Order: sequence, then C-alpha cells, then structure tokens
Amino acid sequence: MGLVQPLEEKKAQAGIEALVSLVSADMGRVNEMILSRTGSDVTMIPEVANHLISSGGKRLRPILTLATAILSGYRGEGHVKLAASVEFMHTATLLHDDVVDESEMRRGKISARMKWGNEASVLVGDFLLGQAFRMMVEVGSLRALQILSDAAAIIAEGEVMQLAAAKNIETREDDYLRIIAAKTAELFGAACEVGPVIAGRPEAEAAACRDYGMALGIAFQLVDDALDYGGAAATLGKNVGDDFREGKITLPIVLTVQRGTDADRAFLRRTLERGEIAEGDLEEALAILRRNRALEDTIARARDYGARAVSALDVYPDGPMKRALVDAVEFCIARAY
Amino acid sequence: MGLVQPLEEKKAQAGIEALVSLVSADMGRVNEMILSRTGSDVTMIPEVANHLISSGGKRLRPILTLATAILSGYRGEGHVKLAASVEFMHTATLLHDDVVDESEMRRGKISARMKWGNEASVLVGDFLLGQAFRMMVEVGSLRALQILSDAAAIIAEGEVMQLAAAKNIETREDDYLRIIAAKTAELFGAACEVGPVIAGRPEAEAAACRDYGMALGIAFQLVDDALDYGGAAATLGKNVGDDFREGKITLPIVLTVQRGTDADRAFLRRTLERGEIAEGDLEEALAILRRNRALEDTIARARDYGARAVSALDVYPDGPMKRALVDAVEFCIARAY
Repeated sequence: MGLVQPLEEKKAQAGIEALVSLVSADMGRVNEMILSRTGSDVTMIPEVANHLISSGGKRLRPILTLATAILSGYRGEGHVKLAASVEFMHTATLLHDDVVDESEMRRGKISARMKWGNEASVLVGDFLLGQAFRMMVEVGSLRALQILSDAAAIIAEGEVMQLAAAKNIETREDDYLRIIAAKTAELFGAACEVGPVIAGRPEAEAAACRDYGMALGIAFQLVDDALDYGGAAATLGKNVGDDFREGKITLPIVLTVQRGTDADRAFLRRTLERGEIAEGDLEEALAILRRNRALEDTIARARDYGARAVSALDVYPDGPMKRALVDAVEFCIARAY
Repeated sequence: MGLVQPLEEKKAQAGIEALVSLVSADMGRVNEMILSRTGSDVTMIPEVANHLISSGGKRLRPILTLATAILSGYRGEGHVKLAASVEFMHTATLLHDDVVDESEMRRGKISARMKWGNEASVLVGDFLLGQAFRMMVEVGSLRALQILSDAAAIIAEGEVMQLAAAKNIETREDDYLRIIAAKTAELFGAACEVGPVIAGRPEAEAAACRDYGMALGIAFQLVDDALDYGGAAATLGKNVGDDFREGKITLPIVLTVQRGTDADRAFLRRTLERGEIAEGDLEEALAILRRNRALEDTIARARDYGARAVSALDVYPDGPMKRALVDAVEFCIARAY
C-alpha cells in the first residue's frame, strides 16, 4: 500500500475540490445563514450548535444541494436556505445520535452531550430541526418541503431500525442496506433532489439527482464502515475500532458472519453482542475481517453504488458541474484507501 | 374545601364537555389519523408512540385546532391533519422531555424511556416530529406551515431556557413567564391560530385565536404548577411534589423566593438547588408556600391569563363554539381546586 496511498490521497483531494470551488460563492452565504440561524438569546443554543457546526465537517450535504441547483440552472435564492436546512437536519441527527450512542467524542472533539449534558443535545437538536423547517417554509416550495419532511421521518425510522438491529450479528445484508438507505442515504438523496425541484426542472431530472444522492450516500456510509476498521488495509490507526467497541453491526461484520467459521461467529457474538471485549480483541477482529475479505468486499460494494451514482447523471450533458459531481463520487470512495 | 371541591369538579367537567362534543365527529378522524401515522414496519415505533398516545391525555391541543377551524366556518379536510400534527408535536416534546428530566413516570404510567431506553424516546420523538411536518405539508397551507414550524423552534428554545434556569431559585417572574410562554403556550397559540388561517379568515381573527391560545396555555401551565403542590389547598395527594423532587423552578417557588424570609430561601436553596431533600421536606415546602400565599397567587395569575383568553374572543359573535371555548378556560382553571 505504501506507494498507492499517497497517490489515492491526492486524487481524493482533487476529487472534491472542483465541486467545492464551483459552489464556493453560494457556500459562503450558506455559512452566513447557518451562523445567523443558530443565533438565539438563549446563549446555550449557539454554544452547543456551534460546538458541532464549527468542528469542521465537510458540509457535503449542503454542497450537494447547491451543486444540483446550479446543475439545474436555478436562478434564485432558495437553494441557500435549503442547503442550510439540510445541514441543520444533519447536525440535529448528530446531536441526537450522540445521546443514542452515548458517544464521548464526535469529529475528534468531546461530544456536546459530554460537555453540556444529554438534555442540551436533545433540545438543541430539536431547535435546529425547527429552524430547518422554518427556513424551508421561507423558500415556499411545497414539493421541496415534502421531500425534506419525508426525509426527516425516514431518517428517524432508519435510526430506530438500527437500534432494533443493534448487537444482533444475525442482521442480514439486505436489512443492513435498508437501514443505511434510510438513516444515511435518504438525506443525501433529498439534498440532491431539491436542487432540480426548486429550479422547476422535469421529474426525470429530479429522479436522477435523487438516485445520484441515494447511491452516493450508501457508498459514503459503506466506506465509513470500512474506515472504522482501518479501511482497505485493515490496520490500526486513529479512530479505528469505534464501531467495534460500541457493538455496532456494519457491513464488514455482516459479511464476516455470512462467511466466517463457527469460531469467528463465536468471537463476534462475545465481543459485539455481549460486549465482552478484552485486550487484543480489536487486533483479532481485524485479522478475522481480513481473512474473510470483509473490508475489500465492503469497499467493492461501495464502488458498485458509486458507479450507480455516476450513471444516474447520464441524463445530463457533459459539463463542469456534472464532472465535479462524478469526481465527488470518486473522492468518497478513495477515502477507503 | 370539603364542600367546594365536588362542586368545582362538576363545573370543570361541564366546562370541557361542550367543546369535546362540538368537535367529536372530527376528533374521531383525528384519532384515526394519529393511529395510521404512527404505523411503521419498524415495530418499535408504534409500540413506543402508542404507549404514550393511548395513555389518555386530554388531547386539548388538537381539540383547539378543530374548534377554531369550526369557529372560522372552515369547510375542508385540512384541520384533521393539522390537529394530528399538533398532537404529534406535543407527543414528541413529551418523549424528549422524559429524557431531559430523567422521568420515570408519565401520565401515571412508566415512561417510555424507562421501558425502551433513552434512545427509543429520542428517536421515536424525532419520527413523530417528521410525521407531523409530513401531514402539515400535505395540507398545503404555507402560512400554517410557517406558524407550526415557528412553534417547533420556539418550543425547543423555551425548553433550553428552562434548562438554563433549572435549579436557579433566583429566576425572576418575567423570565419564568417567558419560559412557559415558549415551552407551553406557543403550541396552544399555534394550534388555535391555524384554524382561522386555513379557513382563510382575516388576520384579526387569526391574531384573536392565537391570543386566546397563548393566554390559555399560560393559564394551563400555571395551574399545573400549582397542582404540583396540591393546588389551592396545598395538601398532599397523588402526584404532589414531582416538581419539588426534580428541583424545578415554577411560579410558586419564584413568588416564595420574592416574598419569603431568609430561612425560606435557605430552605429552597438546599432542597431545590442542591437537591438535598430529607424526610418531611415536602411538607415543610408546602407550609412555606402556604405562608407566602404562593399557590393562591399563582392561581390568581392563571385567572388573569384566563380572562385575557376570554376577552381575546371578543371579535366573535356569541354562539355555541365561542361559549364552549370560554367554558374551556374555566375548565382549565377549575382544575386548581
């Protein structure tokens, strides 16, 4: 891997830069909107919200809303508020996820719930969700409101599905894919779909952007799942093993349970289901995943979804924004290496 | 009180019955809508949602939406979905409140978070909020969407304000009134305002219904605050003392801090701020509240807000629905006795 990795990293960076540059003017306004809409006389609200918002997420979801609006030739102001809404929905989900997962860290910082308590994470998440809907309503597109409110319900449904599947190593691959379609990909799909929708473009283009976003979202989540076990190399590094320690069932585990020996399954049952994790168990888990080719096949599936995302854009003629959206797919997948 | 109480109770019941009867046909459809929209393939969702929804709340908020729509001569179907949305927003708030307050009981039943965990309470609350927005969008009134999404953000803001004021006995009366205006009255106000709005009635009527709901909501909360210390009689009974044990600052406490002796304040600081509660302290608290006339004056303020609610309806001519709405105010206040 020694030679390949730097190359892939360079490619990954180039992959997202075109997209970031094409939306940068609008993105500045999204960032202003985000700042102004986290404002409140209740000082705890901007404190908690900005703790997370300023912690350097990639803002991929609002970027996608801006990009698909520009791809659709949209001329107006609505995409800025919709993009900010999408980011608020995402941030609210992260705040609530931390409470659900009892996370101590988020994006390399102490989690909001550890600093301000579960209460603040729940309530500031609710506030951001309310603010998200306010902004959407201001844009005034009932169709965009429908897409995003559908997404809000489906995301929560996906999170509950994940909760019900938690620590159950019998979870099947199609069940797992349905969970991540709902909890992760749905917001990517909605973020992309509202672009053509507010531009008044035909249904086929809205469907194409939605398909792009959904497939990209699934690819993105699968790469995250692989990265949590060290990516393609399956080696220890920073942030490796969080899912393992939390007993999260992700695709690498699902594939290993399908393919592994009885001893492999017994190991995963002890560590993930019963939470009995001893010194050296993470290394042992990595060895088992490697032996079952679980990470490379998770990434292979991410590639398949990436290819679907790219072909969803076939309805569009060649152009800089289309190319940037294609490159963004490659960027998401190259993270795995 | 021996003679007065049964009389007051009878009056209280009569007070709400006219309203319930006038909306009963529509309310049947709201209940069907609530049941169908808590449905999900994810079985945990209807389980958790129905645990709370079927636990016999009064459904006062959706009743108000139906009542103000009928008062406004509305002919359509939208009020049913808006009423169900309002109830879902309320239920979501209760689920999240339980996590925030670490409540073990809710409406005389074990709380959802004790039965299914904090995670389920947070996520099913999020799901209901998403479903609420879906139904609102289906109704298609941007103005109603604006009112209810404003409410969602303001309610969460009020909850955070309350969190920031928690266990601080220096909270002032006007600060406390702002908290309950946001966390409780706002949803009453929005529930009432959307009735005339979807009926296309003039702004003055929408404002009148909103004022009615806001004032009624504050009165309702103040009576709840008084009831938590046994109501006008300040005597022990079932559910008395929950706020005291949780260290909640409510108007009876605020008034006592203003008026009481240094010893009274020292007592409240020990019990509410530091949470050092010993055997007999609740009885002592009731004695201190009685001595400072804190409960009767809390109820007197509730009466003032009740009178405001009634006079907000001055724009409407006399009629059965107006009379039922006036009686509902009396019902809310009579609970205090």
